[in-house]
Amino acid sequence: MPDLRKDPITGRWVIIASDRAKRPNDFVREPVEVRGERICPFCPGFENKTPPETLAYRPSGQEANRPGWALRVVPNKFPALRVEGDLNPQGEGLYDRMNGVGAHEVVIETAEHATNLGLMAEQDVANLFFAFRDRVLDLKKDPRFRYIVLFKNHGQGAGASLEHPHSQLIALPVVPKRVLEELSGATKYYGFRERCVFCDIVRQEMHSRTRVVLETEHFLAASPWAPRFPFETWVMPKRHASHFETALPAQIHNLGQVMRSLVRRMDQVLENAPYNMIIHTAPVQEGPLEHYHWHIEIMPKLTRVAGFEWGSGFYINPTPPEESAKFLREATVT
Amino acid sequence: MPDLRKDPITGRWVIIASDRAKRPNDFVREPVEVRGERICPFCPGFENKTPPETLAYRPSGQEANRPGWALRVVPNKFPALRVEGDLNPQGEGLYDRMNGVGAHEVVIETAEHATNLGLMAEQDVANLFFAFRDRVLDLKKDPRFRYIVLFKNHGQGAGASLEHPHSQLIALPVVPKRVLEELSGATKYYGFRERCVFCDIVRQEMHSRTRVVLETEHFLAASPWAPRFPFETWVMPKRHASHFETALPAQIHNLGQVMRSLVRRMDQVLENAPYNMIIHTAPVQEGPLEHYHWHIEIMPKLTRVAGFEWGSGFYINPTPPEESAKFLREATVT
Repeated sequence: MPDLRKDPITGRWVIIASDRAKRPNDFVREPVEVRGERICPFCPGFENKTPPETLAYRPSGQEANRPGWALRVVPNKFPALRVEGDLNPQGEGLYDRMNGVGAHEVVIETAEHATNLGLMAEQDVANLFFAFRDRVLDLKKDPRFRYIVLFKNHGQGAGASLEHPHSQLIALPVVPKRVLEELSGATKYYGFRERCVFCDIVRQEMHSRTRVVLETEHFLAASPWAPRFPFETWVMPKRHASHFETALPAQIHNLGQVMRSLVRRMDQVLENAPYNMIIHTAPVQEGPLEHYHWHIEIMPKLTRVAGFEWGSGFYINPTPPEESAKFLREATVT
Repeated sequence: MPDLRKDPITGRWVIIASDRAKRPNDFVREPVEVRGERICPFCPGFENKTPPETLAYRPSGQEANRPGWALRVVPNKFPALRVEGDLNPQGEGLYDRMNGVGAHEVVIETAEHATNLGLMAEQDVANLFFAFRDRVLDLKKDPRFRYIVLFKNHGQGAGASLEHPHSQLIALPVVPKRVLEELSGATKYYGFRERCVFCDIVRQEMHSRTRVVLETEHFLAASPWAPRFPFETWVMPKRHASHFETALPAQIHNLGQVMRSLVRRMDQVLENAPYNMIIHTAPVQEGPLEHYHWHIEIMPKLTRVAGFEWGSGFYINPTPPEESAKFLREATVT
């Protein structure tokens, strides 16, 4: 009998189709392969192919927008939103619009073209999260920006258009709907129990351990109770904090370790499947929230989302999270 | 400057990236082609390859589960949910689950293998909607079913696994989240204006006409104000009704005409792109609702949904709806 499970934060129901359970080898693969590109605008020596950097990690004393960097953040050359201008909100009959004001930046994670988060050194993986933090702390000073989406599309199958390892951020003048839903679900839970729902999840998962993938000093990586997608995995800080950008250096270093190990495990078990990674964090202009807890969601791209999912916001997942967690937990990685 | 637009029902914000506007030829195509399959379980003569039919349109006097039918509805051979059993809702710590009880049926739209909604006769297209209506009226007698999702995945790129023209229905013991969101948004609008938001949309679109694709006696086909996807199109009944299954025969015949013409236009302009079609309707166990209005959403599959969209519920659409409506409106179809 398939299982219907409810996500305790958003209230989203998911069908876990346990009687046609899929193991890693059952999925159609679209493995991410580095083919090499003739001219990569993210490689050292091509700094003039991108807009000037907004941040870079490089030995001190070096000139900006020149080779020698370990990580580089640049505005997206084809941004979805524009940094300049006023929002100028307007009505049009019953409809609402405003100018597409926002920031769209690319984090070039490493100077090396043919690598990825699972192959990089832990310190280099941590650098990505230090860069995200540094950019958020800078961008949140602009009061027009209400939310900053921090994400990575890995591989063409997950929407990446360039193969050089990179992540992205989009600063928005509105708080997106999915974030509002999480906040509202977490508020309801807090109103009822007077505890953070994510803190309760971390506690329960650390106790039952059936969905745990790995645990470090500061983080728990686990499959959620009601995953939308096979092998979906969440990384949650063990200590309560609503805003990603408040993470301390020791935590960010530790996050580099967790993420590297998790991606290595996924790459091994799912043979380099494309994936999306998204940091879920509280709106930047809000103070610390007792009911919300930042975390990272990683979703390998193994199935297609079809009409049923779009129509209903109701997902069919052919792999129980207890099984996907076991595969990832038991993967032997160094 | 890109445009930020808010959907008046759900409150979802969409970036309409008008300065990198995409025309039909700019998308990567994955055209739907009929290759022919060695053995098609949906073709006449192979009725024993499917579970026994729950409904069929065939000349009276003919035997069930034999050739001669014009349309056939059968249980899905690999259902996501099981019809038998109790829900048996249970807790597991802070989590909720229940048995995956529900119905999963396939509507085989026509006996002909190598056709599609745009090529079929209007009466045959109408038959699909008569079948959806008939099955909903039957299934809603079962009080375990709270919602019935009616949808079509056309083409592999949209999630179809068989090429013979077919649609699907899934009867669920819970009301899915996306439906609850629409209902809640529509309730808020009604509370404020004392009018149905969809009735207001129909009125405003018929007046401005910039997003209208086609209009018939009973229906308006138009691009929505804030589409998530390029060429997303909605078909709305002009007269208020919350439940699809209450549509009268004259309306369903008219729906067959609208849908055939719309699909023909899409197939011409987008060169047979895959698409998803979903009927948005009120929960089956509710009485008529003044604030909700059933309608159909059609989403051609032209772009990939990547991390940003998953993370935020915030969409970037490179084609303004005024442009997509113009292309579809001006397509010459017979």
